Amino acid sequence: MTEDSQVATLVDRALTGNRRSLGQAISVIERGGADAEAVIRVAFPRSGNAYAVGITGPPGAGKSTVVDELLQVARKSARTVAVIAVDPNSPFSGGALLGDRIRMMRHASDDGIFIRSMGARGHLGGLSLATRNAMVLLDAAGNELLLIETVGVGQSELEIAQAADTTVVVVPPGQGDTVQTIKAGIMEIADIFVGNKADHPQADRTISDIRELLRMDTQRRKWRPPIVKTVATRNEGIEDLWIRIGQHRKYLETGDLLRERRRARLERDIVSIAERKLRSAVIEPRIDSAEFGPLLDRVMSREVDPYAAADSMLLASGMAGR
Amino acid sequence: MTEDSQVATLVDRALTGNRRSLGQAISVIERGGADAEAVIRVAFPRSGNAYAVGITGPPGAGKSTVVDELLQVARKSARTVAVIAVDPNSPFSGGALLGDRIRMMRHASDDGIFIRSMGARGHLGGLSLATRNAMVLLDAAGNELLLIETVGVGQSELEIAQAADTTVVVVPPGQGDTVQTIKAGIMEIADIFVGNKADHPQADRTISDIRELLRMDTQRRKWRPPIVKTVATRNEGIEDLWIRIGQHRKYLETGDLLRERRRARLERDIVSIAERKLRSAVIEPRIDSAEFGPLLDRVMSREVDPYAAADSMLLASGMAGR
Repeated sequence: MTEDSQVATLVDRALTGNRRSLGQAISVIERGGADAEAVIRVAFPRSGNAYAVGITGPPGAGKSTVVDELLQVARKSARTVAVIAVDPNSPFSGGALLGDRIRMMRHASDDGIFIRSMGARGHLGGLSLATRNAMVLLDAAGNELLLIETVGVGQSELEIAQAADTTVVVVPPGQGDTVQTIKAGIMEIADIFVGNKADHPQADRTISDIRELLRMDTQRRKWRPPIVKTVATRNEGIEDLWIRIGQHRKYLETGDLLRERRRARLERDIVSIAERKLRSAVIEPRIDSAEFGPLLDRVMSREVDPYAAADSMLLASGMAGR
Repeated sequence: MTEDSQVATLVDRALTGNRRSLGQAISVIERGGADAEAVIRVAFPRSGNAYAVGITGPPGAGKSTVVDELLQVARKSARTVAVIAVDPNSPFSGGALLGDRIRMMRHASDDGIFIRSMGARGHLGGLSLATRNAMVLLDAAGNELLLIETVGVGQSELEIAQAADTTVVVVPPGQGDTVQTIKAGIMEIADIFVGNKADHPQADRTISDIRELLRMDTQRRKWRPPIVKTVATRNEGIEDLWIRIGQHRKYLETGDLLRERRRARLERDIVSIAERKLRSAVIEPRIDSAEFGPLLDRVMSREVDPYAAADSMLLASGMAGR
């Protein structure tokens, strides 16, 4: 636990653009709890100006290279860009990964670029809230564009992708099962598809598989997700991707779509914060109480079922059973 | 909402081994809520006898084939085996997937085998509780062995894998990034590794990568996860895998390890049920209330931050703010 005034000073420095303080403030956010709340209470009123692009896809799709090249293209029009590289399967955080360090060095000479990696350790289950909070801070610190890169296509990755305004799904060329791994969940959140490694012999096959999936998708709204072919390692197709992102942004800004997306996102934030607060106010004290061990023993011996045990926990904390 | 007596009749039939009723009861479990609770209240006292083996790994590892072959080997010693195939990325449930139907037909003549698939749709975020409840029901219905197959290596898949007594991680041969996709999270939960498609040119490389990862793992307990080479499509190595599962089971049964694992699992169940009950008792009524829209508008306009909004939701429901 840090002193309140210390947190306030840290956030003040971070919001004026001090990179070291920004990094430290994100570490505070990752630890969660009262200090993370203090950071967001200061940062949130100054947020709401950044545009967030999520980039996701299975491992091996070449997401990092796409993000790196996109960063260069984006910097021609955006004054400042921040990258959050989220890996829900990694226990590391805070730029400890070798790949991240190499990456940061590549952009080290550019003051308009800030890169941060976040792993799952330390905020298990809460990674998506920590990512959202880091986005709020980087937004409040004046970054015009946020790139949120996530590895994988599981439930937690989808949650993170949902935090973006525009979601880009990067697909590697594969032997038929590639598109299978992308499947329905991600079809619903993809605003733009990138067929990366387009020079690979299997690439055309994968791209026509995606096209087929899109054709079968009857739930489609007015925006039909384009498929952009890239060879990120040779910087091919990246300008086109940037143009498509701009088109999607314009599409959202026409009418009330961007506002609706952001409203739904804030609703999810509030609900997940409320759940977390409830958990620490109601459930955690019960787990730590002297009664919990004996209760668990009675569930082990099948005298009490888990639903009855949950009810008695909630009753003990003054909450009704259902 | 079904009548209580209807649910009771359904569970009674399911527990006597009626396969159709068993399938219907799992559908009730998947829908969650009061009916799911009613099913578990009846089933739980009769559970606690099944041994659960989790099989997980990245897409394309050949998990289904491993499970299918393991099923045949296991049936030589287990009177009844139930398979739950969980795909957190699939919107389908209830055996609607073509692959599942083909699979069920293959085992259709064997009354000792029950197969069920579960997708993410309908219980978003609650898939791991639904899986646990289906395990309780299949256990209470007298299945001696449960095989829980999950696709993927993300956070939600890890949660599901944690529900097993023995966790098997199936690794496909790959080009170096395969082992990277398995990473730390899954290293911690793997009791046995399967290097499937061992006849593939890249297989030896992948197996030595896993061996290297295991060597670097300093947190290892007395049980050192063995690596079993299989070619599941030719039924090679499956007997060996079954022997290793038996050895791990013996290891857990010596001392108090199995009991400890199951106690931790029940603790997670109780906590997740309590969280769900709290959510529907405290948070959902607030989201549905007339005050929520205006509150969200004030967050959109940055007058109120998400933490303050969560506090006011909890206050309105009679809960303290923190």
